[in-house]
Amino acid sequence: MKKIVTGSLLAVLGLSMTCLAQAQVKPDTLVKQRQAAMTLQGKYFGPLGGMAQGKVPYDANVVARNAGYLEALSKMPWDGFAASTKDLKSAALPAVFTDTAKFKQAQEQFEGEIAKLVSVTKSSDEAAGKAQIGAVGKTCGGCHESFRQKQ
Amino acid sequence: MKKIVTGSLLAVLGLSMTCLAQAQVKPDTLVKQRQAAMTLQGKYFGPLGGMAQGKVPYDANVVARNAGYLEALSKMPWDGFAASTKDLKSAALPAVFTDTAKFKQAQEQFEGEIAKLVSVTKSSDEAAGKAQIGAVGKTCGGCHESFRQKQ
Repeated sequence: MKKIVTGSLLAVLGLSMTCLAQAQVKPDTLVKQRQAAMTLQGKYFGPLGGMAQGKVPYDANVVARNAGYLEALSKMPWDGFAASTKDLKSAALPAVFTDTAKFKQAQEQFEGEIAKLVSVTKSSDEAAGKAQIGAVGKTCGGCHESFRQKQ
Repeated sequence: MKKIVTGSLLAVLGLSMTCLAQAQVKPDTLVKQRQAAMTLQGKYFGPLGGMAQGKVPYDANVVARNAGYLEALSKMPWDGFAASTKDLKSAALPAVFTDTAKFKQAQEQFEGEIAKLVSVTKSSDEAAGKAQIGAVGKTCGGCHESFRQKQ
């Protein structure tokens, strides 16, 4: 019985410690981390946009590699938009913190299109790849339109 | 024949255009991108370090998720250490640009230990996970020791 109580207590404490660890991330660190994720999305999506527009030659290997990176990166920014960051200086519009359902939906659309890009780029079908890069780009733009200051 | 020549020419031009596209990334953008990758490595490795040290409870799901993110992130900083960035202000020591073979070896050791972490965390073996987190941490520290200003 003592063991069970201790175990439960530790589980409760453990849970609290985990929550505490996350809550303890400073708001300015959260902003820095989410901006880092956006910076890297730009690094790996930018060249694909150029390929889709025919500005640089389509390279199926680069597209597939970047799509894989973007799949991970597409999931990284969102926990950085914690309520604790709402008064910090950044390009995030107030809607991020007031229209959270729409913001969440925009995140999911982006992640969904990236997942499709990963799938599409497993073949070397250039036309399909370019079309899907365009679809991803629309979700970037759609989210920025509603949730990021004009740049 | 004409088609082949044109094709070859385009291939050559294409290659040049791709190289040009990469060469055109401004040095300060390269620094920002590589620092972004390091920031996110910190975001996703930090909690694992805490778990390995017993400061926070071991959560196999978080470890496996972060290991997957880190596998992508472990490959992202290195092209940002281009020669064009060597005179820019950053924490990179001159050795990054003079002892490139050792720097490359340190990158590969880090990527290798991260790959092992991904493999190890496919099971929920806590002891093995903690040991491999420690092995990753050593490669972080080893590289920072030789190639990053003391912080």
